[in-house]
Amino acid sequence: MRVGILGGGQLARMLALAGRPLGLDFEILCPAPDACAAPLGRHRQAGFYEEEALRALAASVDVVTYEFENVPAETVAILEGRVPVYPHPRALAHAQDRLREKTLFRDLGIPTPAFAPVDDLAGLKAAIAEVGLPAVLKTRTEGYDGKGQFVLHEAGQAEVAWTAIGRMPAILEAFVDYSRELSILAVRGRDGEIRHYPVSENTHEQGILRVSVARPGDPLQGRAEELVRRLLERLDYVGVIALELFQVGGELLANEFAPRVHNSGHWTIEGAEISQFENHLRAVLGWPLGMTDPVGFAAMVNFIGQLPPAEAVLALPYTHFHDYGKVLREGRKVGHATVRCPDAATRDRAIETLRGLITQL
Amino acid sequence: MRVGILGGGQLARMLALAGRPLGLDFEILCPAPDACAAPLGRHRQAGFYEEEALRALAASVDVVTYEFENVPAETVAILEGRVPVYPHPRALAHAQDRLREKTLFRDLGIPTPAFAPVDDLAGLKAAIAEVGLPAVLKTRTEGYDGKGQFVLHEAGQAEVAWTAIGRMPAILEAFVDYSRELSILAVRGRDGEIRHYPVSENTHEQGILRVSVARPGDPLQGRAEELVRRLLERLDYVGVIALELFQVGGELLANEFAPRVHNSGHWTIEGAEISQFENHLRAVLGWPLGMTDPVGFAAMVNFIGQLPPAEAVLALPYTHFHDYGKVLREGRKVGHATVRCPDAATRDRAIETLRGLITQL
Repeated sequence: MRVGILGGGQLARMLALAGRPLGLDFEILCPAPDACAAPLGRHRQAGFYEEEALRALAASVDVVTYEFENVPAETVAILEGRVPVYPHPRALAHAQDRLREKTLFRDLGIPTPAFAPVDDLAGLKAAIAEVGLPAVLKTRTEGYDGKGQFVLHEAGQAEVAWTAIGRMPAILEAFVDYSRELSILAVRGRDGEIRHYPVSENTHEQGILRVSVARPGDPLQGRAEELVRRLLERLDYVGVIALELFQVGGELLANEFAPRVHNSGHWTIEGAEISQFENHLRAVLGWPLGMTDPVGFAAMVNFIGQLPPAEAVLALPYTHFHDYGKVLREGRKVGHATVRCPDAATRDRAIETLRGLITQL
Repeated sequence: MRVGILGGGQLARMLALAGRPLGLDFEILCPAPDACAAPLGRHRQAGFYEEEALRALAASVDVVTYEFENVPAETVAILEGRVPVYPHPRALAHAQDRLREKTLFRDLGIPTPAFAPVDDLAGLKAAIAEVGLPAVLKTRTEGYDGKGQFVLHEAGQAEVAWTAIGRMPAILEAFVDYSRELSILAVRGRDGEIRHYPVSENTHEQGILRVSVARPGDPLQGRAEELVRRLLERLDYVGVIALELFQVGGELLANEFAPRVHNSGHWTIEGAEISQFENHLRAVLGWPLGMTDPVGFAAMVNFIGQLPPAEAVLALPYTHFHDYGKVLREGRKVGHATVRCPDAATRDRAIETLRGLITQL
């Protein structure tokens, strides 16, 4: 079987690494000449609007999936009807637009921070009155890793904020004083079967994920599963999904979802029976889903912009090194390490050791 | 870093799959156009005597290793001095010749079945008198998976046996009435550090490995480690080695060693902290060795000649599927499955289930 992947970054790379042992071949459609997934499959170097390349991909593979949620609607339109595309593109439409996404959450009874749409400066002022302050102004589309966002602390900042995000259609969200950031990864098969991974507890800095800790048995696991299940079923979703959540008191508020494998689930490569990457492939191929049970006490530390020396990481016990083979650039995710430990205390020490290595760079 | 591998079969493939996450690139030198490792690296399609291709490989990579022990001495001679080659080729000279191998064992005080060299029919008759019957006549070179062997039960079979193996320089080995077949995999770094995996208990049928079960805590672990350590140190070995052993009573007799990653260690991908493949790469690169501790209760079942449907294997709990992407052919190793279970009883049931799938093919 041949799987086409739109996008050639580290998520595509790890999908291919998970799929090769299953006997799968891969075609990677990505305009970047140095796409880090390219060595693991056939690289079709083309843009996402290049109809000829998309038709050729569709003719050559059994299924198409994607590693990023900003796949253009035009791309999907060319592919659909020629080759199965999973997750179904209707998930993209919601994930690409923060207002549609939050509205979907509300329709499904999934709690969210208070929010209001913003189309112009007057609208922003009205939204501030409705949502309250502090609040976060976010572009409806295209933002990621904290880009396209502005935190407002007082109403007088409205014009600065509106300019800062580029005077684009936006959404104002109440700033949430959360105790924890969690995410839940789940996978749904073509037959509707759903399996959930243990929730991840995530730490972001400057809007970029730094650390994810697997939390099997977390008291909020059941609630997180209930929320993501509503989303999966409404979207008739196929594949892995990630739902990012804020914990406020004992309740969970949905922040956003990603219709793809997700950075906060990288620990599943070593820390779960079957990884998010393999389970995504199983789902989109219509194959049986794999076990999502935890293996040991796992956590992941991201390498952003720089990599510690391989020798330093490999010398650490219980530690698994992942170098994405990317050119190093500030703010870029270039690798990660997973620790899988016999107990929680060892895991916590291992995380600190890794963070110490990063500090020394 | 770029690693060159001589040979492009499933061992090279699994080396590359283990090395890609470490940021390594691979060049695979293999004459087969459909080498199953080729999609995981740059395929240099050339024979092992092609000097130009070998020089180009040496100029292009940081280190060369191999996935089979019958690398010609001429190949090594061309590479040496141009690029580091690990494991050191002196291990090849012993592994390629059963008589040198057994003589090395004897020199090191590693017990073996009784053996005698055979150069002609008269020599075979003398060897039978010395070694006793039943005994196994094996060519000194080139045999694998039970090929080039003949089991003698009576002296009258001498001429038939001599003809059957092709009238080639041979060795006669006493037939051993063993209770178990074990192997121990160990890895030695460039700095001389040695780590051992738990022994594997192996089942062969028609001379081909069928099942390997990891046996952490086996009462013979310490003895197996002692024997393989002698070999590693004498050969100043770098990389993963496999020593195959027969258990007779409470003692271990050495059968043969493989100077490479080994089929009986495939369970280490899921069933050990760091797999034999990653540890081999760490060793040949001079990087720190990884933990060889077991994870769960693991075993491996080989798929020979045929593969069960992917869906059937993937539906099984605790089971990890490995399809080498090879053309199916009788007697050929085309894949395996590893089970990694929470307890021994679950592991044993999982092995039986997999063997049942094979029987249905």
